[in-house]
Formats: sequence, C-alpha cells, structure tokens
Amino acid sequence: MLKDIENLPMGSRFPRDEILDRLKLNAEGLIPAIAQQHDTGEVLMMAWMNAEALNETLTTGRVCYFSRSRGRLWRKGESSGQIQRLKGLYIDCDGDTLLLRVDQTGPACHTGRSNCFFLRVDGHDVVVTSNPLIDPETLYGSDEPSPPAQPSGNEPA
Amino acid sequence: MLKDIENLPMGSRFPRDEILDRLKLNAEGLIPAIAQQHDTGEVLMMAWMNAEALNETLTTGRVCYFSRSRGRLWRKGESSGQIQRLKGLYIDCDGDTLLLRVDQTGPACHTGRSNCFFLRVDGHDVVVTSNPLIDPETLYGSDEPSPPAQPSGNEPA
Repeated sequence: MLKDIENLPMGSRFPRDEILDRLKLNAEGLIPAIAQQHDTGEVLMMAWMNAEALNETLTTGRVCYFSRSRGRLWRKGESSGQIQRLKGLYIDCDGDTLLLRVDQTGPACHTGRSNCFFLRVDGHDVVVTSNPLIDPETLYGSDEPSPPAQPSGNEPA
Repeated sequence: MLKDIENLPMGSRFPRDEILDRLKLNAEGLIPAIAQQHDTGEVLMMAWMNAEALNETLTTGRVCYFSRSRGRLWRKGESSGQIQRLKGLYIDCDGDTLLLRVDQTGPACHTGRSNCFFLRVDGHDVVVTSNPLIDPETLYGSDEPSPPAQPSGNEPA
C-alpha cells in the first residue's frame, strides 16, 4: 500500500492526510491498533480503530478505538477511568497496522491486570501470569462485574 | 471467550489444547499475532496465524505465520533468512490476539528496517523514522527487489 515511499530515507515527510487516506482498512473499515506503554515497552492490548476513531485520537491526544462488540466509538477508559494518552502513532510498512505509544492510566485490561496478555503457553499448559492490580468491581462497579454494554466479547476497559 | 478463567489467580493452569481450541479466529480462520523482541521490548511487526501456523510455531520454536497475500504458511525468514525464534507466546483476555516474544535475526521488516513501524505521525505530516539496516536487495536478491511471490501487499520478510 505504501510501496512508493518505503525505500525513501529517514526524515522524508509526507502530508498526513494523504497517508491516512491510503491506510488499508478491512472489510468493516477497521485497522488493528497495538497499544504499547511508551516508557517501559510493555505491550498493553490490541484493539481496532475506524477512520473516525483514528481522527479523534490524533485530534484529542486521548486514545479512542472502535468497539466491535458495542458497534460504536470506544473512548478507552470511558467506563473505568483507565485512559490512554497518545505519545506517538506509527504506521507499518503495509499501511494495515498501527502502533500506538501511549501513557496508560492504571491497568489496561478489563480484568484489572496491567495488560491483556496474561495467559502464557507453558509446555502443554497455559498459565495465568499475573494478578489484577485493581479489582474489576472497583473499575466498573459491584453491580457490573464486567464492563457495561458488552453483549459479546470482553474487550479491555 | 475466556471469561470463566479471567478472574483466576496467577499460577492457575489449564491444558494448552483446551485453551487453543477456544481462540477466537476471524472469518478466514486467522488470529493477529504481534511480534515483540524479547529483550528490548521493540514491537517488530504484526502478522496473522491460522491454527496450523500456531501449531507449527509451538512445535518447532520457529515462528510461522499465514501469509494472506500468498495464501499459504509463511515461515518467517524463509526468503530473507531473517527468522524469529519463539521465546514466549501469550494469549490476550479475549482470546483473539497473540503476543509473541521472539528473538529476531536481523531486521524484521521486508524493507530491511529493524521493525515495520517506521512511519510516524508528526503533526500534519508523516515522517520516515529509520533507514534500512540491510539493503533489501541483499535480503531478496537484486533481480527481486521485493519479496518473491507477493502479488499484493508487502508483508515483512
């Protein structure tokens, strides 16, 4: 998708909107976005953005995804308060994946864990590798053990 | 997808095959896999796996993806020699994304750059943030300026 610019040297610049228009969205108009804690390198989660979510994120500096389960924009932390501030946004060589360098407030995962990748393959087992930093009931309220309005799936907070 | 186990404490174990059978693949039978350099935290690339690629990766310890453009298994580095050794495989809370901690030989990106996320949004511009470590012609041969058999897209090497 970005074949014509991939061999240009470091420092080459292009109008942002021209590049964003060439991102390769999937059939649902979405692109995967990896969130990485900017100062530690911890990979926090992966979610999806549509063009509107990406535009809002770049405009406000607060990360906004598109929730596939809720079918609407999802301002990360809108229920839990565990927001992500954008520190840097990177596009890959294919123009089909984003890397967000963020500053995460509290845990990124809806389970209250620091990040969503807490299940590790260990030989013929899978093992839980961390405990919640915060009880999810504290994040979402005791009468809502999971994030509200998530009929299917359990996306991060 | 993994709602019943997400609140279990650190150290809880489950049979691997039981968990892998519950991964949430997309309509094409694929799951996104983020590759991160295990010792530096650098996010190298994102690609896709099917069940066969995942099984091969776990069996051999050498990372194998499924190339959507080529429609077949893609043993990372099969053309370029820039392979990935698996150091750890993590599943997210939704069971719909994988995080691979790898040891990358040479550059991960087909452009010869260390990683695929070399385009950074900078205000109203996008800027190229790095140069190739190796000329792609060295990786793929001078009569093949791009990786062979990639009719569309330009996935990493």
